[in-house]
Amino acid sequence: MLIDCGEGTQVPLRARGWGLRNLGAILLTHMHADHILGLPGLLLTLGHTERGADEPLPIYGPEPLLAALRALLLFAPRLPFPIEPVVLAGGETFPLAGAEGVQIGCAALDHEVPCLAYSLTIPRAPRFDPERARVLGVPVAEWKRLQRGEAVEVGGRVVAPGAVLGPPRRGLRLVLATDTRPTPALPEFVRGPDGTGSDLLIADAMYGDEEDKPKRWRAQHLTFAEAATAARDGGARRLWLTHFSPALSEPAAYLDRATAIFPATTVGRDGLTETLTFEDDGG
Amino acid sequence: MLIDCGEGTQVPLRARGWGLRNLGAILLTHMHADHILGLPGLLLTLGHTERGADEPLPIYGPEPLLAALRALLLFAPRLPFPIEPVVLAGGETFPLAGAEGVQIGCAALDHEVPCLAYSLTIPRAPRFDPERARVLGVPVAEWKRLQRGEAVEVGGRVVAPGAVLGPPRRGLRLVLATDTRPTPALPEFVRGPDGTGSDLLIADAMYGDEEDKPKRWRAQHLTFAEAATAARDGGARRLWLTHFSPALSEPAAYLDRATAIFPATTVGRDGLTETLTFEDDGG
Repeated sequence: MLIDCGEGTQVPLRARGWGLRNLGAILLTHMHADHILGLPGLLLTLGHTERGADEPLPIYGPEPLLAALRALLLFAPRLPFPIEPVVLAGGETFPLAGAEGVQIGCAALDHEVPCLAYSLTIPRAPRFDPERARVLGVPVAEWKRLQRGEAVEVGGRVVAPGAVLGPPRRGLRLVLATDTRPTPALPEFVRGPDGTGSDLLIADAMYGDEEDKPKRWRAQHLTFAEAATAARDGGARRLWLTHFSPALSEPAAYLDRATAIFPATTVGRDGLTETLTFEDDGG
Repeated sequence: MLIDCGEGTQVPLRARGWGLRNLGAILLTHMHADHILGLPGLLLTLGHTERGADEPLPIYGPEPLLAALRALLLFAPRLPFPIEPVVLAGGETFPLAGAEGVQIGCAALDHEVPCLAYSLTIPRAPRFDPERARVLGVPVAEWKRLQRGEAVEVGGRVVAPGAVLGPPRRGLRLVLATDTRPTPALPEFVRGPDGTGSDLLIADAMYGDEEDKPKRWRAQHLTFAEAATAARDGGARRLWLTHFSPALSEPAAYLDRATAIFPATTVGRDGLTETLTFEDDGG
């Protein structure tokens, strides 16, 4: 999946050799130029892959998604695959095509136009106890069904999955939230429906300091401190800051404004990557 | 002036510290995505300069310029300066605002949509002979008028500019031509109305070789050899090749296809710059 598609999004993808072939969905946070203008070029490139008429590409986003796509697709005519626009209001969850079990969620933020934060949730199966399964006489061929949460019959007895599975385990949750003013909806969304927080929050941090906010109109973005506060209050485990104002010539110089509130903060940069892993639960 | 504005056009401008403040005109060759999608972002950035309501920005281009701008400007609303679209058919010439004497010309190329080549012409004044002006008794204060081509009166006699000015001198002519199939209109435009050719031709060279051309439809671009032929036949003094196919992983490997026809060829790259100077006429 790809969240937002600003100008030049293809450049780092190409530099890293990340193909577009298996793109399952594009999620757009809002319909501002700097978040969507790379879309026609990306779609044209995707049109040069094998993707065909039987592989529609869903594009999710808030209003005015359809008007924006109507304008953008003028510049990407004759695509060999269909576009499936899905207008979201915030609060919806849906599966990510092609990635079993992975769920996408969204929440309405507070910006000058409708704007959504997105979450990506990867579930984790409960621990399976092979010793216990052996004791209960379950043949190895049936273990997969138990691991999937199905009951199996062994010699006339029913073995419920609870007999061989441990308690539920937290999976992974990633949240991206840009652009927004401070809003209680953000930490609430970071915390997630089960209240366990997020492994990584990638957040708008346009302003280094409070005094960087514009004087003439209400600021539409977060300061470093406001992003850090959302991470702390939402129970995030890590925070990446992004979407810096062009006036912020050295974003890293403001890092302490965030770490004073939320120590596990990284100042984002082009090409920043991270591998998220399930937490070590002693198993 | 800026010719075309693809995705990410702002990035190298910013890297070089080239401001947008004095941008006199934007010239669009045609309305394809890869030539215009950087426009909204660039205009939004220009909106953060001092440019105000009294400084309209002309945007020139062929049809469907107005439809394209209507779509693109959805993503750059509330600009503090007016846009002045000028639809061109090819063949027009007009002055570049803010650059005295500089003329822009255009010619229709042969592409799947209307597409223009542009020329930038910088005139050169004839040589002024100060010795001759002194002999004729023209006071130094009046020399500027003679240099501008005006006659002056000295002690009841009229001194015509021709008395102190040498023959006309060739100025500078730059031509940019992309995207196009081979067309006789290109060398003709490179040669220019006075037949003296161009100092630099920047030309479409999508295909390294004839066999790189698509098989399923008529090629819409030039090969290295076709671009070199246009440069030779149009009397260009230098040629830059650009607009390489993404399939051309190493464009420089094809340079000999061009130099066999036109030796003064350079394979273009991001950030390539050149200072053009008037030819040495022995003065």
